[in-house]
Amino acid sequence: MTANPPASKVAHFTMKNGLEVVVIPDHRAPVVTHMVWYRNGAADDPQGKSGIAHFLEHLMFKGTALHPKGAFSEYVASVGGHENAFTGPDFTAYFQQVAKEHLRTCMAFEADRMTGLVLTDDVVAPERDVVLEERRMHCDTDPGAQLGEAVQATLFTHHPYGVPIIGWGHEIEGLGREDALAYYHRFYTPENAILVVAGDAAPEETLKLAEETYGKVPARGAAPVRVRPAEPPTVADRLVTVRDQKVQQPNWQRHWLVPSCRTAAPGEPEALDVLGHLIGGGQTSVLYRELVIEEKLAVSAWAYYHGTALDQSRFIANATPAPGVTLETLDKAFDRVLAKFLADGVDEAALERAKTRLVADAVYARDSQSDLARWYGSSLALGQTIRDVEEWPARIDAVDAKAVLDAARKWLDRRPAVTGHLLPLDAEAA
Amino acid sequence: MTANPPASKVAHFTMKNGLEVVVIPDHRAPVVTHMVWYRNGAADDPQGKSGIAHFLEHLMFKGTALHPKGAFSEYVASVGGHENAFTGPDFTAYFQQVAKEHLRTCMAFEADRMTGLVLTDDVVAPERDVVLEERRMHCDTDPGAQLGEAVQATLFTHHPYGVPIIGWGHEIEGLGREDALAYYHRFYTPENAILVVAGDAAPEETLKLAEETYGKVPARGAAPVRVRPAEPPTVADRLVTVRDQKVQQPNWQRHWLVPSCRTAAPGEPEALDVLGHLIGGGQTSVLYRELVIEEKLAVSAWAYYHGTALDQSRFIANATPAPGVTLETLDKAFDRVLAKFLADGVDEAALERAKTRLVADAVYARDSQSDLARWYGSSLALGQTIRDVEEWPARIDAVDAKAVLDAARKWLDRRPAVTGHLLPLDAEAA
Repeated sequence: MTANPPASKVAHFTMKNGLEVVVIPDHRAPVVTHMVWYRNGAADDPQGKSGIAHFLEHLMFKGTALHPKGAFSEYVASVGGHENAFTGPDFTAYFQQVAKEHLRTCMAFEADRMTGLVLTDDVVAPERDVVLEERRMHCDTDPGAQLGEAVQATLFTHHPYGVPIIGWGHEIEGLGREDALAYYHRFYTPENAILVVAGDAAPEETLKLAEETYGKVPARGAAPVRVRPAEPPTVADRLVTVRDQKVQQPNWQRHWLVPSCRTAAPGEPEALDVLGHLIGGGQTSVLYRELVIEEKLAVSAWAYYHGTALDQSRFIANATPAPGVTLETLDKAFDRVLAKFLADGVDEAALERAKTRLVADAVYARDSQSDLARWYGSSLALGQTIRDVEEWPARIDAVDAKAVLDAARKWLDRRPAVTGHLLPLDAEAA
Repeated sequence: MTANPPASKVAHFTMKNGLEVVVIPDHRAPVVTHMVWYRNGAADDPQGKSGIAHFLEHLMFKGTALHPKGAFSEYVASVGGHENAFTGPDFTAYFQQVAKEHLRTCMAFEADRMTGLVLTDDVVAPERDVVLEERRMHCDTDPGAQLGEAVQATLFTHHPYGVPIIGWGHEIEGLGREDALAYYHRFYTPENAILVVAGDAAPEETLKLAEETYGKVPARGAAPVRVRPAEPPTVADRLVTVRDQKVQQPNWQRHWLVPSCRTAAPGEPEALDVLGHLIGGGQTSVLYRELVIEEKLAVSAWAYYHGTALDQSRFIANATPAPGVTLETLDKAFDRVLAKFLADGVDEAALERAKTRLVADAVYARDSQSDLARWYGSSLALGQTIRDVEEWPARIDAVDAKAVLDAARKWLDRRPAVTGHLLPLDAEAA
């Protein structure tokens, strides 16, 4: 299956102030998805100010010189739309989905808050408490999240990907109005942003609306520069264990540092994608078949390549042990399954199935207007091109058995990794 | 044994330009130790510029506007003296030991290079290669050093103590003249320095010499500010394993984050010092007795509290397994020995012996002029006072069994730690 969707339909402009504009026409319904992506995320938080990207994302809803707090959100709700925002390690994005006639107003609101944000200590302090509570609820009291944070910090000891997106609690506590404004003024600029409009919108007409709204935002002259230390190589295997009485279901995981779509050699991200799917994508995958069905050591098992990153990224394997099976047993079982996969080689039919599934998932993603907008937005925010996005199915299709095995040998086999063990308090040491 | 050495003899001045001066008279021989300590070390390296403190220490021998490269070192050698320099996480120091009549000239040289350093790419590039070779020799090809670096990076995932003093190789490669000069101008100032003169030197006369030499260095107005992110708390135990064919002798180690002399509650650093000595100081210690003599699981075993740090520090236990003993066995044996120590309580005679030994070691240190100068210099560089140094024996003497057990329970027992395993390539997974 080779999907070649209507590539030529996607329009890409760069406005005079540096703002990139991507229009993805989809006329099935009179609805548009309007997104603005900033090329900065949690990994760009200044040292000692972790959480500022995410905190500012919250604060972006606190009003501007022109629009009081809540006005934008109320407008979106009043026209039956919905909105959201998210902060990743490499980008921050804001979106609304509304009937097409409201696109211009959303653009005007979003353009206004690119420069007009007003912050007072009155709104900053309570919002910081909201974030701290979010951290307490979702990180500090959840053993699975605690393991995730510890694994990530162990995998990335030097690069800021090791710091949670929400930030470390003691640093969030120190974030104030000045920090938020300094970060805002550094990164929220037209040169650093990408406007993505997907839906019932014609490219030229959308560009005209963008000129009338975002076009008013003055250029800064250049995009801000991101500076991130690189992770040093290591020869050490690391095992991270969290034991907690709240753990009902133990979990096993292994994480490797691998190149991302931005740092890999040509063809390698696709080989890693296919490798992830072959060994750990669904119930026909090698891990599921061996660990769950054949050996009955696990009740679930999956693997995944996280290619969407600006810098070095992760390949992850995960399994939930069957009752009575120790995580040490899973450590060894995974090694055995990987060695067998490398020895047996890739089954051609399975390879074709994996590639078909990956491409099909991508095609289905195109059915969701907001998923499609996300795909383009995140890719462009990482420095990829429209063409990179559109040629992805063909690149997946070109992956052969040798490329998959080469990737597995190069990046997984005997490479130092971080293994995570989640256990109840009374479990035998695994 | 309560040592109360001639405290009042140590003189402490602050010069007009902010330079602190400490004179430690010792008239047994007509020799002086002359040291300058800067309150910056590897943990103050800017993000992405790891190794710059240590690299600059090398470059400080490359000559000034007044004195060509090598002139200072040649002078010291020509008068039969010796010199050295060292970079720690929290300070950098330069010292010479010479006959007393050469003190003034050493002061003049050292004062000159506080501001007069001249660097050209001609000297910077080859010296960077020297440092890179030092790194390759001592870190990258030594499995024990690789384990040490990986353990340290796992213990300090956020605080810069996780970065090796020499720096990460890929960052050293990027260090240039501009980086070195920027760092030099930021930190090499009289306000940031401490002059320590130990030996056959009278305080007032020494101060006069310092005024004539260091007194010429203009004040900058304020000491530079150190900003370091703090390590977040974790609930995860971590095991770091290095396997290498070069390993002849496996090694087991455990590291805990504990407060330093600067961050601990009053009395706690001394309790941790005594705890370290009781459980792991020499052949009468608990670990040696249990693991080496009784259980015969190890051929060596020791523990140590590293209190000399500006920020959070480490408590370390280390053992070399007896032939045929796995490191997993040592993991469990250590837990058992610690639990037994906590259950049995502290033997009063052993406690007295440990305190006597710690204080005696300190008294013997006073016999070595350079050790004494180092002790005062490093303490003052961490923000402690002369009085803190001189009252240390009395504070050790005041540690009781309860304080030791409290420290062990609070900082070691069931606290998340980083365990290190060093193994030959063919060893059974431990």
